[in-house]
Amino acid sequence: MKSDLPKVLHKLGAVPMVGHALAAARSLDPSRLIVVAGHGAQAVTDAVAKLDDQARIAMQTEQLGTGHAVAQTLPLLDGFEGRVIVLYGDTPFISEATLSDLSGHDAEIVVLGFEAADPGRYGRLVTDADGNLERIVEFKDGDEATRAIRLCNSGVMAVDAAILRRFIADLNNDNASGEYYLTDIPGLARAAGHRAAVVTCREEETLGVNSRAELAQAEAIFQSRRRAEALADGITLTAPETVWFALDTHLGRDAIIGPNVVFGPGVTVESGAEILGFCHLEGCHVSAGATVGPFARLRPGAELGGDAHVGNFVEIKNTVLDEGVKVGHLTYLGDAHIGEHTNIGAGTVTCNYDGVMKHRTEIGRNAFIGSNTMLVAPVRVGDNAMTASGSVITEDVPSEALGLGRSRQVTKEGLASRIMQSLREERSKRDKS
Amino acid sequence: MKSDLPKVLHKLGAVPMVGHALAAARSLDPSRLIVVAGHGAQAVTDAVAKLDDQARIAMQTEQLGTGHAVAQTLPLLDGFEGRVIVLYGDTPFISEATLSDLSGHDAEIVVLGFEAADPGRYGRLVTDADGNLERIVEFKDGDEATRAIRLCNSGVMAVDAAILRRFIADLNNDNASGEYYLTDIPGLARAAGHRAAVVTCREEETLGVNSRAELAQAEAIFQSRRRAEALADGITLTAPETVWFALDTHLGRDAIIGPNVVFGPGVTVESGAEILGFCHLEGCHVSAGATVGPFARLRPGAELGGDAHVGNFVEIKNTVLDEGVKVGHLTYLGDAHIGEHTNIGAGTVTCNYDGVMKHRTEIGRNAFIGSNTMLVAPVRVGDNAMTASGSVITEDVPSEALGLGRSRQVTKEGLASRIMQSLREERSKRDKS
Amino acid sequence: MKSDLPKVLHKLGAVPMVGHALAAARSLDPSRLIVVAGHGAQAVTDAVAKLDDQARIAMQTEQLGTGHAVAQTLPLLDGFEGRVIVLYGDTPFISEATLSDLSGHDAEIVVLGFEAADPGRYGRLVTDADGNLERIVEFKDGDEATRAIRLCNSGVMAVDAAILRRFIADLNNDNASGEYYLTDIPGLARAAGHRAAVVTCREEETLGVNSRAELAQAEAIFQSRRRAEALADGITLTAPETVWFALDTHLGRDAIIGPNVVFGPGVTVESGAEILGFCHLEGCHVSAGATVGPFARLRPGAELGGDAHVGNFVEIKNTVLDEGVKVGHLTYLGDAHIGEHTNIGAGTVTCNYDGVMKHRTEIGRNAFIGSNTMLVAPVRVGDNAMTASGSVITEDVPSEALGLGRSRQVTKEGLASRIMQSLREERSKRDKS
Repeated sequence: MKSDLPKVLHKLGAVPMVGHALAAARSLDPSRLIVVAGHGAQAVTDAVAKLDDQARIAMQTEQLGTGHAVAQTLPLLDGFEGRVIVLYGDTPFISEATLSDLSGHDAEIVVLGFEAADPGRYGRLVTDADGNLERIVEFKDGDEATRAIRLCNSGVMAVDAAILRRFIADLNNDNASGEYYLTDIPGLARAAGHRAAVVTCREEETLGVNSRAELAQAEAIFQSRRRAEALADGITLTAPETVWFALDTHLGRDAIIGPNVVFGPGVTVESGAEILGFCHLEGCHVSAGATVGPFARLRPGAELGGDAHVGNFVEIKNTVLDEGVKVGHLTYLGDAHIGEHTNIGAGTVTCNYDGVMKHRTEIGRNAFIGSNTMLVAPVRVGDNAMTASGSVITEDVPSEALGLGRSRQVTKEGLASRIMQSLREERSKRDKS
Repeated sequence: MKSDLPKVLHKLGAVPMVGHALAAARSLDPSRLIVVAGHGAQAVTDAVAKLDDQARIAMQTEQLGTGHAVAQTLPLLDGFEGRVIVLYGDTPFISEATLSDLSGHDAEIVVLGFEAADPGRYGRLVTDADGNLERIVEFKDGDEATRAIRLCNSGVMAVDAAILRRFIADLNNDNASGEYYLTDIPGLARAAGHRAAVVTCREEETLGVNSRAELAQAEAIFQSRRRAEALADGITLTAPETVWFALDTHLGRDAIIGPNVVFGPGVTVESGAEILGFCHLEGCHVSAGATVGPFARLRPGAELGGDAHVGNFVEIKNTVLDEGVKVGHLTYLGDAHIGEHTNIGAGTVTCNYDGVMKHRTEIGRNAFIGSNTMLVAPVRVGDNAMTASGSVITEDVPSEALGLGRSRQVTKEGLASRIMQSLREERSKRDKS
Repeated sequence: MKSDLPKVLHKLGAVPMVGHALAAARSLDPSRLIVVAGHGAQAVTDAVAKLDDQARIAMQTEQLGTGHAVAQTLPLLDGFEGRVIVLYGDTPFISEATLSDLSGHDAEIVVLGFEAADPGRYGRLVTDADGNLERIVEFKDGDEATRAIRLCNSGVMAVDAAILRRFIADLNNDNASGEYYLTDIPGLARAAGHRAAVVTCREEETLGVNSRAELAQAEAIFQSRRRAEALADGITLTAPETVWFALDTHLGRDAIIGPNVVFGPGVTVESGAEILGFCHLEGCHVSAGATVGPFARLRPGAELGGDAHVGNFVEIKNTVLDEGVKVGHLTYLGDAHIGEHTNIGAGTVTCNYDGVMKHRTEIGRNAFIGSNTMLVAPVRVGDNAMTASGSVITEDVPSEALGLGRSRQVTKEGLASRIMQSLREERSKRDKS
């Protein structure tokens, strides 16, 4: 990856790649979910904690192979008697259906295989006449007959916990890489009379990511699927190829998504809402009938009520807009609550940061915030209240009241001409000198 | 479509799909243009009224087939003796050249056919040795010989009004669907000794839209054509695949369109104007030499004179900018007229809405609007006048005058440090408690 | 090209197409670099001066062919005894490796050829048994045997200066076009006993641009290469196909570039900086750890120090942000210097233009600029100073001081309700009349 960032933390669908494996694992409703953190362990641990607060971490301080990695999880599997499923943080496309096949199979060991279009240097799955798995052979250890096999090893495996404990102890590193291979377990178990089976999936589910180009390709595959699913679900995407989904984006039927919309994590857009072009949404909820954009940014904690409108060059952060609120232009609302049917004028800013702390702004219903109002938080504006355009509001404005904080206009006849004349003379002098 | 919106109102090229059929029909300069509205009739009626105010509506309260639909138009065709051309609201790509072939043909009935790459379940056109049309056979009613025919029915038809009236009465619904089929007319008319002919077009002209995915595909085809046409016409599109045209977008030669530009309906960009990246234009006119963007939004009624400049994070609505006006940054101009060579400072807002009504702002020529001026409409600023930065202008500013509405600066030595110190102490107390 | 702009000035990778040939030529570290300007000579001369201030211009007042064009350079080659390499302003993809092959070859004349997939109407290179070049034959002058040759002429040529001078005088225009062809020189020189050779490159290096569609195609090729190179260099491009590079874009390892980012000329983004989606950068430097966007515009002269943050709807022009400066929202900074760790509130504007001249704003370190501060330049704000939200700062604010320029808030009980009531009555009257 040519990167200082651990590979599994590179983002795919707006979440670290490991988040896809976590989501797939979570879909099985497992009793324990363990992540082995090796390279960049601290960063991986922090990221996993944010993605799945129930996941536990097994530290692998040396990188001695896949068998060694799984061995690190044994203490955390203490007392566990079910099935262990091994997934990979850099293999984000294993489907829930495939995982369900794996976990539901009755063999003691089940390996996920695939028919490779070009088997190349993949490990091969050697099966017997009944289709049971005899052993996994690494490409470099294979003879010609083995290399002719097209059924390849994805690395993903389901193993009964007892079998795993029993045979992981028998792994050795007498091989070219000097590593302990998890792939030796099926052969060892079979030799001891246990049954190993193969479940297959489409090759594309096993796609791994080992470079930025492969990451970009994986992103393209992810996006392409999500766009197709959205269309099939009755969402209008004017230009599907310019809409970027996150892993957990939820869009309701008849939502309309314009060109060039980026969804970060945690976005829900309800049925019938419209996101116009050039919008960037993250951690927000857009209710039915609301319209957003173009050129709007919704940041975490933005909640738009029904029929709310957020227009161009508007940023909303950690702010609830109740039903029918209008924020049309050039506005920043942060750490605020706006009551229903209130209108926020162009150029309004919630001054939520005083240089040290953040403070809240509360605005009531049916209020009218004049253009370019500065709301110096903490501050409240009541129901049906108004602020005059260009006011700096530092004190609460009660319901029905007008808050005003500006100077009266003075008009100086002829002064514009005299100023311009003087400026031109100044420039003329400067140009000459 | 999995949608509450009638299919023909889903947008293609920024207008409801039915608008494409209306535009095609209008290109023939018809004496009457009738739309049959069935499913979602009220919404369709409203949309059609906006698209073509001369089009008449025939209501189809029950959906009993294409023959039944056309029958609903007969009262509106009363006294009409010419040729009736039947188009479909969900078939947006029939070309003007094809329609001209249809309407100009001398047979009493002319059906539009196409050679299908994969005829599949299309209806087939059965022709005689001279190429005349014998009848149209639905796929499910066809024997093997008929199904081997590759000439398929598009549904589009031209019929002499008298023939239509005569035979539409003979249609019956003795078929699997229990519907009255317009496609039975050619066979009936032929049996009565009339002549039916076939005109063909490329298969892609007959593309119909029956799902969101097909709608997205149709949009891609539409955009691809418009981009190629624009390039051929001498327009520079830096990144053609990121420019989104509407049905009626007009661009002049040597116009330059940057990446990521979305044209809504009703946009004209004159020769030599430049639209930088990330712009959203709708219902506006950009004159020669003007530059727009990046990150600009022009809304309906925005008219930019020659050499005008609209810069980043600027919204213009229902506003005329005369020649050479500059609006560089972070501005909202709505319901205004700006005289030539006037400069609008960053952060300016026309406060055009008082919570109840909209009002106008008029600014003269060679004026200088200081940054962050609030223009509380209705208000006028004269020629060569100025407003001071940060002013709220509530009264007219005469020509040559300066309008000023702000407080004089006061500087309090050391106060910043004391405030910060106090805020830090407050936070510290809060953190402890 | 259907354009008033000379073809070589159409942009590719954000610079005029001729800039690609200039950059390729400059990579050889030539002692003289000469551009022949014919059609649109003044515009070409001006553009070349901006691209390479060492390039000299040879004027070609009549367009009499490639031989005639090169002949115009002879006065500027006076006294030069090395190798002359002829490139074309509309052939932007000749690689440095190919140029190095050409310039390093020991033959007196070296012509750049390519094996064409479809030789079509290209000129053919006729070689002898040893692979030496005998002559170049234009397609229309070739017999069947010649037309069967797949080795085609790119037009690019390296010639010893003495040979060029000697034989350019012998060119004539006795041909169908009535033009003097540079391609006649190898044949003439060979006939006089000199050695001519062929160097080959991939066909795509010789791609020429003769229409807007070909320009768009060339842009697509250029962008595709740059994106692949960036990925290979360890840069994350979330959506590679939506990132637009300029010829001279420099990105450091582990830089993260979101969807929809446009790089104009002159951009450097250091290692580990992040550019979020929807950004437009030109002539700027983004240091390690800085974050930009979404929806940010960096214009020429924007320099972002380490860990600086430029957020949404922010424009930075000719302004240095020192380490850790935060400019979060809706701000215009032009002609300014901001000291380290200073925070710029939302809606801030440097009022750098007085209608006649531009002026500078200087802000110290650890300052706090309140939201919606107007900084009327020339003006200075000292270290640790503050400005109150909504202030117009016209005089310097010393270190540690607070600059304040706003009116105190007045609250008028019940006035909002009375105003709204009165506005509604007015509208009601208006509606009735």
